[in-house]
Amino acid sequence: MPHPTTTDLLIIGAGPAGLMAAAWATQYDMTTRIIDKRPGRTPTGHADGLQSRSLEILESFGMVDAILRRGVAHAEMCFWGRNKESAGIEREKRSRARLKDGERFGMVLLNQGLVEQAFLDHLGEVKVEYGKRAERLVFLENEEYPVEVGVRKDWTDGADGVCDDLEIIRARYIIGCDGAHSWTREQLKVPVRAGSGDSTWGVIDIAPISDFPDIRQSCAIHSGDYGSIMTAPRENRLVRFYTYPKGDGKLNVEGRDQSEVSRDDLVEAIQKAMRPYKLTYKHCDWWSIYKIGQRLVETYRPHDRVFLAGDAAHTHSPKAGQGMNVSMQDTYNLVWKLGSVITGTAAPRILDTYNLERRPVGEKLLRLDTELVEAYEQDTTTTEGVERVRNQYVDFMTGVGIAYGPNDLISGKSGEGSVARNIRVGVRLASYPVVAQADGVCMQLAGRFTSNGAWRLLVFPGDLRGSRNWGRLCDFAARFNKQPHLSSLHTDQRFGRCRCLESILVHASPRASINLLDLPDMFHPFDETWGWDYSRVFADDGSDGDDLGHTYDRYGIQQKFGALVLCRPDQHVAWMGSLEEVEALEEYFARIR
Amino acid sequence: MPHPTTTDLLIIGAGPAGLMAAAWATQYDMTTRIIDKRPGRTPTGHADGLQSRSLEILESFGMVDAILRRGVAHAEMCFWGRNKESAGIEREKRSRARLKDGERFGMVLLNQGLVEQAFLDHLGEVKVEYGKRAERLVFLENEEYPVEVGVRKDWTDGADGVCDDLEIIRARYIIGCDGAHSWTREQLKVPVRAGSGDSTWGVIDIAPISDFPDIRQSCAIHSGDYGSIMTAPRENRLVRFYTYPKGDGKLNVEGRDQSEVSRDDLVEAIQKAMRPYKLTYKHCDWWSIYKIGQRLVETYRPHDRVFLAGDAAHTHSPKAGQGMNVSMQDTYNLVWKLGSVITGTAAPRILDTYNLERRPVGEKLLRLDTELVEAYEQDTTTTEGVERVRNQYVDFMTGVGIAYGPNDLISGKSGEGSVARNIRVGVRLASYPVVAQADGVCMQLAGRFTSNGAWRLLVFPGDLRGSRNWGRLCDFAARFNKQPHLSSLHTDQRFGRCRCLESILVHASPRASINLLDLPDMFHPFDETWGWDYSRVFADDGSDGDDLGHTYDRYGIQQKFGALVLCRPDQHVAWMGSLEEVEALEEYFARIR
Repeated sequence: MPHPTTTDLLIIGAGPAGLMAAAWATQYDMTTRIIDKRPGRTPTGHADGLQSRSLEILESFGMVDAILRRGVAHAEMCFWGRNKESAGIEREKRSRARLKDGERFGMVLLNQGLVEQAFLDHLGEVKVEYGKRAERLVFLENEEYPVEVGVRKDWTDGADGVCDDLEIIRARYIIGCDGAHSWTREQLKVPVRAGSGDSTWGVIDIAPISDFPDIRQSCAIHSGDYGSIMTAPRENRLVRFYTYPKGDGKLNVEGRDQSEVSRDDLVEAIQKAMRPYKLTYKHCDWWSIYKIGQRLVETYRPHDRVFLAGDAAHTHSPKAGQGMNVSMQDTYNLVWKLGSVITGTAAPRILDTYNLERRPVGEKLLRLDTELVEAYEQDTTTTEGVERVRNQYVDFMTGVGIAYGPNDLISGKSGEGSVARNIRVGVRLASYPVVAQADGVCMQLAGRFTSNGAWRLLVFPGDLRGSRNWGRLCDFAARFNKQPHLSSLHTDQRFGRCRCLESILVHASPRASINLLDLPDMFHPFDETWGWDYSRVFADDGSDGDDLGHTYDRYGIQQKFGALVLCRPDQHVAWMGSLEEVEALEEYFARIR
Repeated sequence: MPHPTTTDLLIIGAGPAGLMAAAWATQYDMTTRIIDKRPGRTPTGHADGLQSRSLEILESFGMVDAILRRGVAHAEMCFWGRNKESAGIEREKRSRARLKDGERFGMVLLNQGLVEQAFLDHLGEVKVEYGKRAERLVFLENEEYPVEVGVRKDWTDGADGVCDDLEIIRARYIIGCDGAHSWTREQLKVPVRAGSGDSTWGVIDIAPISDFPDIRQSCAIHSGDYGSIMTAPRENRLVRFYTYPKGDGKLNVEGRDQSEVSRDDLVEAIQKAMRPYKLTYKHCDWWSIYKIGQRLVETYRPHDRVFLAGDAAHTHSPKAGQGMNVSMQDTYNLVWKLGSVITGTAAPRILDTYNLERRPVGEKLLRLDTELVEAYEQDTTTTEGVERVRNQYVDFMTGVGIAYGPNDLISGKSGEGSVARNIRVGVRLASYPVVAQADGVCMQLAGRFTSNGAWRLLVFPGDLRGSRNWGRLCDFAARFNKQPHLSSLHTDQRFGRCRCLESILVHASPRASINLLDLPDMFHPFDETWGWDYSRVFADDGSDGDDLGHTYDRYGIQQKFGALVLCRPDQHVAWMGSLEEVEALEEYFARIR
């Protein structure tokens, strides 16, 4: 047996969930390794939809630009049904994608391989170890690195068959992001609940040659006898077609594997469903026919030290463009908690919240999937059912409405009677434009919420020109500094990379009326080398543009009362209170440390 | 003598001008090399301002994101003068930076090294050959590659003194981007005109510790007896200070070189000028004291095959934040012409336009510089003079108002009576948001004007629902296809990388009323493998947002008359006419081929 190596975190699988885990892990002072049995990243095909919340998360890592530049924006969805007289399809409706208040990104379509590439370009220290297969899982007792995994390197290129290089990796924690047929899940014999049904789908990415007028838009097409199609425009000149054929056009795939079904059969089924429009192609990027079962693991944390994420935890049909998003959001929820525990800033029991927060998302995902499957399989000639389900789940599908808690990390009340009527505890904080006090730059508040491991305490003191609000703010600062947990979290910081608590002030005074250095020290902490931090104070001041000056209103914060809003490192609101509730805030942190 | 190697283009110097030249050159099917005698990119300091037009150009190469993310936006400039009673400085005015109609970027501050890094990250095939010094220039007669340059590699790291590796490079053309002390310029003994005066400046990049309230804003400070200061906030927590000391605070630098002037003297001069505010620092990133002369070469093209650009062609003070911008724009103007000539799509005589277009910019730059120097040196205690000069030259300073021609590449009339009242021939086309016909995505028209070497013919036919405009458009297309130059340029294309003429249609009909494939073929050219091009048709349709649907109005195009607008590969308007003036357009291309 080779001598074991150790790592704080071992990630098994480098799809979107694993890569997101690695991106998060690099923000913490810990060692991380990520292995994948494949020889390299996904070359073509597979998932291709990025929803609003996923784009916000990518942005928080500073890596959304390449995605937006390469991908195709989803601006409009067209619904097509069958014209009863001509028996061909006809457009029933155009549905424009609209951003909700506080939402910054619309859906973007880009193949999974290019999303993985954006992560690979972004990951600095951590390199994906491709061609490495996990083959043995043992738990050691009373060890600092108790999870032992045997990893074997596949020699597939140019080697002469000698492949006895087994490595033994001991980790504090492992995350199984190893897909629908998860090796990690198998080792622990994690019970899996089967959902309502299995369905067989065909999918193909081609450069279509077609007179279909909406070929460059996302479409839901219900052709009646020839089954349903979903289309999505993609990078370069590709279009993705999903087909769920039935009736005359049925693909006879039951009991056969993909190799027996020719690509031509798949295209023929699509051609029939798209009549009277013609469709041919010369270039095919990728295609697949697959039977997908709805599956959900009974727990996302089958062992104290082992977590499951992405397809290893949940599988479903591709109908709602959710897979890649929910998978990335699984590990985005998990790894800041792991980073905090491993680096000693939070107690291990916060790890319970991973299953508590993400498994309900998996459950809801399967419900959405079931309803969409039913809507697509309905024996109608319209897409009304599909549209109804999509509208019902819109906040879930974009990801911006996903709510966690209450639990150890989410506490306090929302809604009417709370300090910020329109902020919901447990949901990610919406972002609005504000003006930076120090330099007058207009920016999204979310631009200050990068994923670097910091918690953020937003302090809304109202208009500071009167002595009342100014006095309350000074009192708040004085009491804050007296709290042991708060003050230690707040001062434990390093320039550029903060894993603690940043206080952010958003005042409602005219920007020119405030001198930043007059504010309490906590809003401009001093560093001996780098001087004051000028990046923490913002004005909700409307004098420089119509879209500015509405942040208090949009959050539902009253200027005379103000508010404290605590955001976790993943931007979800953890707690809210008034400027006087400093002790309750202190208790929050006392509880999780 | 070693055996010579050949290259189509040799770029000497890899500062911003040289790197921009290389970025352009990679868009053409030709060989390019770029050498620099330095061991690597600029590490710290030097230029740091990027103006609007430079950012548009970087965006057209798809490389602006990293710059915007790393740089500091310039939102407001503060003017400070001397308070006559207290003798300290006081704020006279805040001046908010406002985007002009059609302008998309404000000024961004980022050190030159990081701008160079963005180019290095972007350049694929072409790698900068650092540590290589040109040392011999010979012109060969009747050779395909007539410019012979001897290049020697500097061995500075780890080598044992053997440095006899001279390489002989023969090039079709060379560009001297080798700075204020240009070797290229020296070889050809290019006459240089000296401007109005030399001045001595101090510059320093520090992380300031100061109670000056506008420390994170750009400021012009006129302290009276202690001279003038300009400040600019920068990436990380740096601030740049320029100082032009006088009176008591005068730096005694005349006749001394930088090594004799301590950094402390420089800071002391700044400290005196900023009273009553205090300024100290621990971290200094870079500093320099330099005497800068206004110089302009008599010609930017001292030999048929040799061009000068950037500081090799013009030097001046750093007062207006122009240096890096004008330098990059020099080669942005030149290299698409060189690429067209080298690849055989244009006649060599279009190269004359480089000097015709860029030398007047150099002249105006020196005039601006003279006026700013005078304003800073004025014996007053206010900054009014500086502000007046800045306002007068604002369109020149941002770069969006720079006008070329008339010359071989710029023809036709602008203004009242022209087909597009608000478009000026010779100026870069302003951009407005439009809706893409095929997918409904709202985007800036400029997003379609990437720097890939293509010319763009914008066709504005008005509202196509009536038969009159529809008929005119079909007539236009039919006549266009009969013109030998136009039709050959238009069809000579490859997917993804087009070095010819793209026709772009912007109609004024509701988007839903048009089916893209019903339009004349020239607006959706067909490729056997990739199908139709769906990316060329846009609707000026306001139904999906208040900022949409105003493009005709903003360009001053009347719906009933329509317009043709021809843009060069550098987005400058080359020619305008009515839909009937196809022959004039044909003549334009006949003239330059």
